[in-house]
Amino acid sequence: MKSKNKVKVIPLGGLGEIGKNITAIEYDNEIIVIDCGLAFPDAEMYGVDLVIPDITYLVNNREKVKGFVLTHGHEDHIGALPYVLKQLNVPVYGTRLTIGLVKSKLEEHKILSDCTLYEIKPGEEVKTENFRVEFIRTCHSIADSCALAIHTPEGVIVHTGDFKIEYMPIDGEGIDLQYFAKLGKKRVLLLMADSTNAERPGYTISERIIGENLTRIFGNAKGRVIIATFASNINRIQQIVNSSLFYGRKVAFSGRSMEKISIIAAELGYLKLPKDQLISVDDIDKYPSNKVTIITTGSQGEPMAALSRIAYSTHRKITVEKGDFVIISASPIPGNEKLISKLIDELFKKGAEVIYNTLEEVHVSGHACQEELKLMHTLIKPKFFMPVHGEYRHLKKHGMLAESLGMDQKNIFIQETGDVLELTRNSAKKSTRVTCGAVMIDGLGIGDVGNIVLRDRRHLSQDGILTVVVTIDKASFNILSGPDIITRGFIYMKESGDLINDAREVVKVELNKCMENKVKDWFTIKSSIKYSLGGFLYSKTGRRPIILPIIMEI
Amino acid sequence: MKSKNKVKVIPLGGLGEIGKNITAIEYDNEIIVIDCGLAFPDAEMYGVDLVIPDITYLVNNREKVKGFVLTHGHEDHIGALPYVLKQLNVPVYGTRLTIGLVKSKLEEHKILSDCTLYEIKPGEEVKTENFRVEFIRTCHSIADSCALAIHTPEGVIVHTGDFKIEYMPIDGEGIDLQYFAKLGKKRVLLLMADSTNAERPGYTISERIIGENLTRIFGNAKGRVIIATFASNINRIQQIVNSSLFYGRKVAFSGRSMEKISIIAAELGYLKLPKDQLISVDDIDKYPSNKVTIITTGSQGEPMAALSRIAYSTHRKITVEKGDFVIISASPIPGNEKLISKLIDELFKKGAEVIYNTLEEVHVSGHACQEELKLMHTLIKPKFFMPVHGEYRHLKKHGMLAESLGMDQKNIFIQETGDVLELTRNSAKKSTRVTCGAVMIDGLGIGDVGNIVLRDRRHLSQDGILTVVVTIDKASFNILSGPDIITRGFIYMKESGDLINDAREVVKVELNKCMENKVKDWFTIKSSIKYSLGGFLYSKTGRRPIILPIIMEI
Repeated sequence: MKSKNKVKVIPLGGLGEIGKNITAIEYDNEIIVIDCGLAFPDAEMYGVDLVIPDITYLVNNREKVKGFVLTHGHEDHIGALPYVLKQLNVPVYGTRLTIGLVKSKLEEHKILSDCTLYEIKPGEEVKTENFRVEFIRTCHSIADSCALAIHTPEGVIVHTGDFKIEYMPIDGEGIDLQYFAKLGKKRVLLLMADSTNAERPGYTISERIIGENLTRIFGNAKGRVIIATFASNINRIQQIVNSSLFYGRKVAFSGRSMEKISIIAAELGYLKLPKDQLISVDDIDKYPSNKVTIITTGSQGEPMAALSRIAYSTHRKITVEKGDFVIISASPIPGNEKLISKLIDELFKKGAEVIYNTLEEVHVSGHACQEELKLMHTLIKPKFFMPVHGEYRHLKKHGMLAESLGMDQKNIFIQETGDVLELTRNSAKKSTRVTCGAVMIDGLGIGDVGNIVLRDRRHLSQDGILTVVVTIDKASFNILSGPDIITRGFIYMKESGDLINDAREVVKVELNKCMENKVKDWFTIKSSIKYSLGGFLYSKTGRRPIILPIIMEI
Repeated sequence: MKSKNKVKVIPLGGLGEIGKNITAIEYDNEIIVIDCGLAFPDAEMYGVDLVIPDITYLVNNREKVKGFVLTHGHEDHIGALPYVLKQLNVPVYGTRLTIGLVKSKLEEHKILSDCTLYEIKPGEEVKTENFRVEFIRTCHSIADSCALAIHTPEGVIVHTGDFKIEYMPIDGEGIDLQYFAKLGKKRVLLLMADSTNAERPGYTISERIIGENLTRIFGNAKGRVIIATFASNINRIQQIVNSSLFYGRKVAFSGRSMEKISIIAAELGYLKLPKDQLISVDDIDKYPSNKVTIITTGSQGEPMAALSRIAYSTHRKITVEKGDFVIISASPIPGNEKLISKLIDELFKKGAEVIYNTLEEVHVSGHACQEELKLMHTLIKPKFFMPVHGEYRHLKKHGMLAESLGMDQKNIFIQETGDVLELTRNSAKKSTRVTCGAVMIDGLGIGDVGNIVLRDRRHLSQDGILTVVVTIDKASFNILSGPDIITRGFIYMKESGDLINDAREVVKVELNKCMENKVKDWFTIKSSIKYSLGGFLYSKTGRRPIILPIIMEI
C-alpha cells in the first residue's frame, strides 16, 4: 500500500507573503512541519500586534504531527511557536542558537517546562517512521542557520531555509556546498528555495565587507559610536565588537532584545566578547566618549526601541549628543521607510553624525541574489521546484530563473499559501487547497479580531464616530431626553457648535417622521437616522463618520 | 532709510519636510512669494486628504504681498494655490505649462474668474518696486521648470526650484547654465538650492537613457503595453509616445489626471502626438493588442487610480490579461512601497509581465545629485547658502557639500520652516521665527482637524471604541434603562457575550458606589466608570478602547 502513497507538501504560510513561514510535509500517517514563524501586521491591520499562521490543518491532523524542524531563529521562522505549541504540543528540533532563542520565548510565555526541545547539530538528522531530516549548514543573517534535506519514501526534498553564500563567513562555519552537491549528484525530487532576493541580479556582498567598512568608518568617529542593528544578527554584532575593540572602545548593549540575545549568544559561544570589555549602559559616562560603543535596537525607527528613545531623549540613560557618531547598520523593512527617515532627521538635528545605507555600505542582505540562486539550483539539480519565502513577484522571478537554467516550466510550481503539492517519485501536481490564513493577535486576544473589527477600525481612523443617544417613552413615543450627540475623531467639538446643533435637529425631524408614520421598530428608526444624518454630515463636512444611534426606552 | 532695510527670506514650508514648498521674500513694504505647494499626509494624519502651509504670516501682511512666482507645476509647488488664493487674492506668475495647470485647478475650485494669472517666458522677468524676478530655464521631471533670480536692493537671490542637469533634454530646451554662470560672475548674495538628492553621489542619469530603455523594452512586448507614470512628467510621456509610435502602437490615456494633463500639454504644444495616433480607452479592443499602448496613472499603487483598477478588475473598460506588458515608470514615493508591491503581485498573478525599477531602469529622478549640485554651486558662487526642499538630513548633507566646495560654514544656513533669514549686502543672520505649520484638509474642512481629532482617530484605529449608555432618574438616581454597551472596532460582538455582560456589571457596581457615596456630579461619575471599565477591559483583553460613558437623566 505504502508505495502508492504520495508525499504532500503543504505550505501554510510564507508563499506570496513575507513572514509566517511554515510548511507541512505529509506522508501516510506522519506530518513534519518546517518552521513556525510569525508575520508583522500590514498597515491595514489596525491595532494588530502580530500575525500567526492558521494551523487548523495541523490541529485537525494532530495525531499525525511528529514535530517542528526549524531552519533558523528569526521571528518569521520561530515566532509563532509559543502560540502554536499551546494548541499542538509536539517536539521541536533545531540548532543550538535556534533552540536557545525558542527557549527564551517559551519561558516568556511560561510554557517552557511543558515543551520538548531538541538541539541538533548541522550534519545530524532527525528520524521518524517515514522521514529522515538532515540539517545542512548554511549562511544567513543569523548564526546557526540550516537547510533541510527531507528524505521521504518518494525521494529527497531540499528546503534551503533563508540563505546566502559566504565563502569566508565571520563565524568560520561556511555553507556546506559540498553536501548540496552530493545530494544533487544522487537525486533530489523537489527543491524549495528562498526567493527573497530573486529580483536582484549578481551576488549579495559578503558580511566581511561590512566589517571592513565598519572598521574604516569607526576610524572617523571622535565621540561615542552608537550603532543600531538587528539583535539576532550575531555575526554583525561580532564585527561591531571587533571594530570597537580595535579602537579600544568598550561595548554596551541597549534595548531589550539586544540585551537578551547578546547574553544568549555569548553564553552559547556565538558571540566572542571579553568580559572586561563589556560595560553596562549605566557606566558609559565613566569612560571617555571615544572609548565607548553602544549597540542598540531600533534600526527600523520603531518608536519604542532604544535608538528612538535615545534620539528623542526618552531613554533612561543615554541621550544623543553633539559629536556622537550614529550608524544604522540595517536596511528599512518595507513600510518602515518614513519612521527611519524621521529618526535620522532627529539624530542630525541633535548634532550627531549619522551614517546609514544610502551613504555607506553598512548593511547587507542575508538572502541569496540571482547568481547565488543559480549556483544552488545547479548543485541540487532538482526534478521539481517550488520557490518559497517571498511575495508573489519574487516567487515568479525565481521560477523564471529556474526556467532560464533549463528547467521545464511544467516542473516549476508557483504556489500560494494553502496550495497542496502532491509528489511521487516521478510526478508532481498541485492538488487541493487546505485551510490556511492569518490569525491576528491583538493584546491578549488570539483570532478575535476579524474583518468586521478591522473594517470598523479603518473607518474610525478615517472619519471618526458620532454617537447620537435619545431616551424615548415606550408608550407615547415622546422624547424624554436627548438627542445628545458625542463625537470622537470626527471634528473638533468646540469649533463645531452649529453643526452639532443642526445635526440634533436632523435627528428630531427624523424621529418625528417615524412617529407620524407610526414606524415603531427600532431597526428601521435607527437606519433612517443613520441615513439622513449621514447625508447631512457629508454635505456639510465631506466626511462620513460611523454613526451610532442609540435609543433608550423607558 | 531704505538702504538700512534688510531682505528677509521666510520659508513657510519645504524645509525639513518633503512638500508644501513656499518661501516669502520680504523687503520694506513688499513681499513676493515663491511657490505655494501642498504636501501629502503622513501615516499618522489619519483621514486627512491634503496638507497646505499655514499662511498666517502672509495674511497678517496682506497689503505687502505682491504675488506668487512659481518655479514649476508640480503639486508640491502649486497645489495649495486654490486654498490660499481664496484667502489672499494676489497675482500669480509662472511659465505657460505651470499656469495652464494652475488654471485647471482654479477652474475645479470654481475661482478661476476671480484670479489673476500671468504667463512668463523663461528669460523674461516680473518687476515690483523693490524686486526684479527673472525666470531662468531649468530641467526637471515636468516641462517648463524655472529657477528664479530675485534681484533685491541688497543683492541677488537665486532659487533653483527643483532641477536636474540635462545636456540633451527631450523637449530641446536645456537648463540655462550660461545664465547661472553670468549671475555668478557678477555677484550672488544668496543661493537657495534643491536638496532632494543631496545624499546621492554622482549624476542623475539622463531622461534620454530612460527613453532608449523603454524603446528596447517595448520591443519585447507581444501584447498590449500598459505603462504607468506621473501624469505631469510630460517628457516621459513624450518618450512613451515615441516608443509606441516606433512600433506602430496607438496610444490611449487612462486616469483622470493623465487625461486632463495630456490634453493641457498637447494644447500648449508640450506633448507631440499626432491626432490619428491617439485613441480612446473605449476603442482599444478595435486594435490588435500588439498595436496598443495605454498610459495610465497609478504608479504609486494608489487604490483608486487607473492602474490599480486595471489590476483588480474594477476599471470601467480595461482588465489586465495574460500577455499584457505592464511597465511602472516611476519610483515609490516613501510610504507607498507596500501598496506598489501588492499591485505588482496582483499584475503578475493575472498573468501580465511586469517591469519596474528594481528590474530595469525605467525611471529616473528629476532632481540633481551631488555632482550636479557642485556644478551649480560653482557656477553661482553665492556669498550665502540656504539648502531648501528636503528633509533635515538632505539639507544637512547639502550644507556639507557646500562646505566641501570651500564655503565658510558660518555662511551656510540650515534652517527649518518658519526660521527667518535676514540679509544685507554683506551679512546674513538667522533672526526670529514666524507662525508656520501644516493646515490639514479633510473633506470640506480646512484646518478643523487638529491634534485632538487626530489623537482620537489614532486611538480608535488601534483599539476601537466602547460606548456605555444609561438612563437615570434625576431625583432618585435609579437606573431607568441600561447600561447598554455598544462597541465598534474593539472586539467582534458575537464572540464577546460574556465580556460585555461582565462589563455591564462593572458599570452597575460603579454607579451603585457613586450612589452610596452620594457622588452626583456627572463628570466624577463618568470618570470612575471610565477608570474601572478601562481596567476591567485591559485585564481581559489587553486592549484599551476609547470608553464613552453617556448618562441620560430624566
